[in-house]
Amino acid sequence: MTDRFRPAARMAGIAPFHVMEVMGRAQAAAAAGRDIVHMEVGEPDFATAEPIVEAGIRALREGHTHYTLALGLPALREAIADFYRRRHGVAVEPRQVVVTVGASGALQLALWALIGPGDEVLLTDPGYPCNRHFVRLAGGVPVELPVSPDTGWQPTAAQIEAALTPRTRAVLLASPANPTGAVIDREELARIAALLRERRVALIADEIYHGLIYEADTCTALACDADAIVVNSFSKYFGMTGWRLGWAVVPEALLRPVEKLAQNLFIAPPTPAQHAALAAFEPATLALLDQRRDEFRARRDLLLPALRGLGFDIPVTPQGAFYIYAGCGRFADDSSALCLRLLDEAGVAATPGLDFGPHTARTHLRFAYTTSRERLGEAIDRLGRLLA
Amino acid sequence: MTDRFRPAARMAGIAPFHVMEVMGRAQAAAAAGRDIVHMEVGEPDFATAEPIVEAGIRALREGHTHYTLALGLPALREAIADFYRRRHGVAVEPRQVVVTVGASGALQLALWALIGPGDEVLLTDPGYPCNRHFVRLAGGVPVELPVSPDTGWQPTAAQIEAALTPRTRAVLLASPANPTGAVIDREELARIAALLRERRVALIADEIYHGLIYEADTCTALACDADAIVVNSFSKYFGMTGWRLGWAVVPEALLRPVEKLAQNLFIAPPTPAQHAALAAFEPATLALLDQRRDEFRARRDLLLPALRGLGFDIPVTPQGAFYIYAGCGRFADDSSALCLRLLDEAGVAATPGLDFGPHTARTHLRFAYTTSRERLGEAIDRLGRLLA
Repeated sequence: MTDRFRPAARMAGIAPFHVMEVMGRAQAAAAAGRDIVHMEVGEPDFATAEPIVEAGIRALREGHTHYTLALGLPALREAIADFYRRRHGVAVEPRQVVVTVGASGALQLALWALIGPGDEVLLTDPGYPCNRHFVRLAGGVPVELPVSPDTGWQPTAAQIEAALTPRTRAVLLASPANPTGAVIDREELARIAALLRERRVALIADEIYHGLIYEADTCTALACDADAIVVNSFSKYFGMTGWRLGWAVVPEALLRPVEKLAQNLFIAPPTPAQHAALAAFEPATLALLDQRRDEFRARRDLLLPALRGLGFDIPVTPQGAFYIYAGCGRFADDSSALCLRLLDEAGVAATPGLDFGPHTARTHLRFAYTTSRERLGEAIDRLGRLLA
Repeated sequence: MTDRFRPAARMAGIAPFHVMEVMGRAQAAAAAGRDIVHMEVGEPDFATAEPIVEAGIRALREGHTHYTLALGLPALREAIADFYRRRHGVAVEPRQVVVTVGASGALQLALWALIGPGDEVLLTDPGYPCNRHFVRLAGGVPVELPVSPDTGWQPTAAQIEAALTPRTRAVLLASPANPTGAVIDREELARIAALLRERRVALIADEIYHGLIYEADTCTALACDADAIVVNSFSKYFGMTGWRLGWAVVPEALLRPVEKLAQNLFIAPPTPAQHAALAAFEPATLALLDQRRDEFRARRDLLLPALRGLGFDIPVTPQGAFYIYAGCGRFADDSSALCLRLLDEAGVAATPGLDFGPHTARTHLRFAYTTSRERLGEAIDRLGRLLA
């Protein structure tokens, strides 16, 4: 390597997304003829639901292949605002809804608009791996809030208050959370929102697993703080991962900065996906998506007792998303090494804790129940034979 | 606005993408019943070619709705590498090809990987409006290279040499260029490439209008510098704007940083678009796309003499893309005001020079010939009546 292509200094702080590495290794093994149970993948195994696919096909046939406006199709922004009214009883103006290239695009826009060099953003550890890199790319400082099973893998208002500094500009909360499936308690969320309003700190709520909640109430942060910045996605509950479509709900004061950034960074979100997504809010589609949610619940109810039975430490029942964050201290000192062993010796792909922050990395694995109950049963058998 | 949502300081330096503003105003006028000739739009008016659309529909029917690997479908990366071999006689390894969310995604990846705080990037003025913002978002310093008709709206090696400083890390060249349609001379490009290799400065070549060249040879920067970072797109020649798909060709030394960034920032480019794009390289599709290129040429040949006849100053014949960058000093002191006048009084939407950098902003408009010859004729008539 010559210094002509010396990477920018920031690259030393950008970790690879380890789940993608595991996925690549698992795909290579599968390509070489091995039977792999994929529990590393953070996306539904179902193909996109038929009414959404058909709407996408219709849009293509009708020639909807040009750019839309940078903030998205007006009809889609209206449909999303309407969804908040119907599902959550929360008033959202269509102009506050920004359609984005996945939730990744929404997070980029929110952080770029708000965060500058030296600004601190509080993030849970464990948490979604890319968030701390988004903060760093914006020049900000990700400050870890270690969370544990003692508080249901979610931070408390008291913990956040203790972590606030004059440099704190935002707190990023995810509910349901990746990798723990933890849903934040409604009263605690209200306390956090009140604290952050008072301290003039932005609340960024990652709600991309909304809709995949099995026990708790689904409560959007907008119900507690009308000025919350909400990030959501068509990937998970709506099953549209590969289409790359998400949205943000943005307070009035950030709309113009976010629009300027969206124009410059992305031009517009994918058009066929936007037309397809219009069908996602139809009652027949939602009924289908709720059936899929029920299937995820059934998988959780199969996998959770089985993993506990094998000796994995899972003190808190995950209430949402499609992940089980399992303590594996009984089996190994290093979850990354265990992950490779499970893949190589049992043909079971999981994700090492390393992806989700240092706090619990070495003692935890994430199992995604994004494969059929039959295959989950197979994985349980294989893990049983290897770890017995 | 409260300080809770005080935008990051960088936002003051991020201009809106003015063409999007003009487009919004023009769409509002059209929605109000006015007949507007759209010459502001930087995208082909044609819907995506049928073989590409059909491939997209087939992919959707087959359930290709999941994430791909972060760098894209292997088959697509191979097809793009093969295209360089066939069209340009240049050897590109598939592993060097990074499929991205539009050329915008490719530029983000290249600049994030390479550019840090204080690093200088040379950019032409006029040039694509978002580039300087991409550089700023990476913490870098965009340094303008003013170009003029005297050098065919492209920089020379001598000019670049004079602008290099110890902080220069990259030079971004576009050919064909937006807004001028200027194609860089092959010998000059070779001189620039040799200079930059010697000075250990990266060459980033924006080739998103490749394929839409009407007279000059199409020469990829890779023919002059095997280590050039090339940014390209399925939007323009391939007519896939709304699908949001592009690519970069990346030197070996930057592959790993770019992959880490792609995983974190984007997860993966849109899957239906990637499958659709596989059909773009088939001979029957390319024949269709070449017909469309010929139609663009015919439009240029209609519009260029007409604009000159009206008194617009266009000393250099644009050789590619679908833009004419027209001097309007004879009609107004301020091209932005003229732009609004053309829209409001003649129903002709063009883009003010302001989008493309300060150097020639006040005295130039960009006309895009992305509408039919009939509509271009209508625009010429209207401009003639207004400006006579």
